[in-house]
Amino acid sequence: MSNWTLRCSACTRQLPGDKLASLCPDCSSPLVAQFEGHVPRSAITGAPSLWRYGAAMPIGPDEAPVSLGEGMTPLLEAPNLARALGLARVWIKDEALNPTGSFKARGMSAAVTRARALGLRGLVVPTAGNAGAALAAYGAAAQIPTCVVAPETTPRAILDTIRAFGGELVLIAGHIGDAGKEAVRLATERGLFNVATVREPYRVEGMKTMGFEIAEQLEWNLPDAIVYPTGGGEGVIGIWKAIGEMRRWGWIPDDAPQPKMIVAQAEGCAPLVRALRAGAEKATAWENPQTSAAGLRVPSPLGDRLVLRALRESGGDAESASEGELNNAMRELAAATGADAAPEGGCALAVTRKLVREKRLDASARVVIFNTGSGASYR
Amino acid sequence: MSNWTLRCSACTRQLPGDKLASLCPDCSSPLVAQFEGHVPRSAITGAPSLWRYGAAMPIGPDEAPVSLGEGMTPLLEAPNLARALGLARVWIKDEALNPTGSFKARGMSAAVTRARALGLRGLVVPTAGNAGAALAAYGAAAQIPTCVVAPETTPRAILDTIRAFGGELVLIAGHIGDAGKEAVRLATERGLFNVATVREPYRVEGMKTMGFEIAEQLEWNLPDAIVYPTGGGEGVIGIWKAIGEMRRWGWIPDDAPQPKMIVAQAEGCAPLVRALRAGAEKATAWENPQTSAAGLRVPSPLGDRLVLRALRESGGDAESASEGELNNAMRELAAATGADAAPEGGCALAVTRKLVREKRLDASARVVIFNTGSGASYR
Repeated sequence: MSNWTLRCSACTRQLPGDKLASLCPDCSSPLVAQFEGHVPRSAITGAPSLWRYGAAMPIGPDEAPVSLGEGMTPLLEAPNLARALGLARVWIKDEALNPTGSFKARGMSAAVTRARALGLRGLVVPTAGNAGAALAAYGAAAQIPTCVVAPETTPRAILDTIRAFGGELVLIAGHIGDAGKEAVRLATERGLFNVATVREPYRVEGMKTMGFEIAEQLEWNLPDAIVYPTGGGEGVIGIWKAIGEMRRWGWIPDDAPQPKMIVAQAEGCAPLVRALRAGAEKATAWENPQTSAAGLRVPSPLGDRLVLRALRESGGDAESASEGELNNAMRELAAATGADAAPEGGCALAVTRKLVREKRLDASARVVIFNTGSGASYR
Repeated sequence: MSNWTLRCSACTRQLPGDKLASLCPDCSSPLVAQFEGHVPRSAITGAPSLWRYGAAMPIGPDEAPVSLGEGMTPLLEAPNLARALGLARVWIKDEALNPTGSFKARGMSAAVTRARALGLRGLVVPTAGNAGAALAAYGAAAQIPTCVVAPETTPRAILDTIRAFGGELVLIAGHIGDAGKEAVRLATERGLFNVATVREPYRVEGMKTMGFEIAEQLEWNLPDAIVYPTGGGEGVIGIWKAIGEMRRWGWIPDDAPQPKMIVAQAEGCAPLVRALRAGAEKATAWENPQTSAAGLRVPSPLGDRLVLRALRESGGDAESASEGELNNAMRELAAATGADAAPEGGCALAVTRKLVREKRLDASARVVIFNTGSGASYR
């Protein structure tokens, strides 16, 4: 880990990558981990989990990852969806096939691997649901106690999953922003390390493997657009980081298309859509966030700057879908592909349809749509 | 598919492998598919799904499988469970990471691939739950209508999953045996093809990939015992078939240990345990089957002969666990490993503990314990 640096995403502060770190000590912005070397594509080896990209991941040469088989999720081509949408090609990246049924497993596998290596004795996370279930599972795998702070409105099945792994569950009134404050308080009070989205720099390193996988699954090409249902934003941040690294390391050809990164949010909580339209560098808090897609109910994403930067650098876009649209699209996604769609995946499909209709996505485009979680988590 | 034969498991009847087939037309016993050729280990290639073993699977050279990313599930080593049980090494084969959260995805991927190739227009299955969810998903993927016949006591989350994929759901009073009769009736009445366990010969071919995977994940070695929570028995039948094929084709060394195949059942429904103890070739129907582990509530498994043969040929064993034991072991499995254990997985762990205590499993044994489904399906 001595060849890793943590760089502040807002100021010029740098820190070593092998020490415990949270937000930037100077300006409280998220730190971004950077591997200071070259990783050849030939270094990709081993098990069908995200740790096949271990050479590009924050893990020491003699360390074992805390792994439950996360990553290497299927990229399902959906020709009938492509026809229905009026697009050249469409794939569903089905993150429901991760441990605890969501993409959050990736980040927690990376973060808990670092936490164990650093000898941490207890972890806490504020969550809209899936990140809490993932932390409880990886905490059990590493035998590190975990504490999950979640809104009392979190889907019951997700709360039961957290309990099943023996994680401590603290339910609060309000949304993930309120849970975030309680997690900070508990971290201080009890000496727990807080692994909230982008408050801890290594979860994003797990997330970036989604970008590596899309490229590898498309035989080292990239799609024209990637539509990601976005709450806290670590998925978009991670994938965009991976695309930069793959270009830098020569994993993809120089003339590979630049995928547009596209954020899909719910109409009842769309701070990033609003910020992109306003040309803002940061998002402002969404008042009274409301959506049945629990993972999208994040009114003040701490990684807002990094998400907006990815959208602008990629020539991307952002749009929202109503509750009716995202729930209908969830059912359509399941029935058309066999993927166990969550409302978040439905939101991504609904937003894709809207962008095609408004000609913000070209009919010739090859598009990857993310189903970030499992429909089962909502049953 | 011209190099495939279907052989009756009880009489001498043989049928071609490329035609529609159900039970043996002479004696109504299950047919077993056999590839009449040599498959070298070098033929294993491609995607991290069970179709990497496509050369040994019932699929034509120009056919695409109906795939949702099934198989290549993690084999998680669990050193703390090994210590707690008093065994040399223990691995959890975590089938929860399949589409729709169970090992049933494997069989349905294979069966629906054949069904599509044969041009079938509608499929029906009787189920204790997970097979129905899997059929509904693969039916959606292949755009073939499906009808699932399930006991009204099936876990609610599984029924909702079936509905999410647009499968028709027929709820019946009683158990899977009663569902089986209704499925036969519906198949005749509506011209549907019945893909019930071992009534259709290709589901087992999907199941056998669990055996291939264990060997590949152990670097072409085999464990000393494989403990499988058993309802209909297609998992045990498939794995034992794979072990025979791997020996025949030289995938594993001649001196690799012969794993004991071990059946774990619930005390409230243990027809195979009873039949093995009685030295019977077939099981008799279990009266009033009762267990919270829905997948184990199979009072008259149609594949009983094949399961009992696998147990005897492998020097295996069979044991049951009480409801208290299997539910406690389910919680222990989740908390000790991070795998999202279902009650069926708990049953396998509880039975393993019993066999070690009674010295029916040696302390030096290296044991693979199956978690056949996801705890999420019960929430």
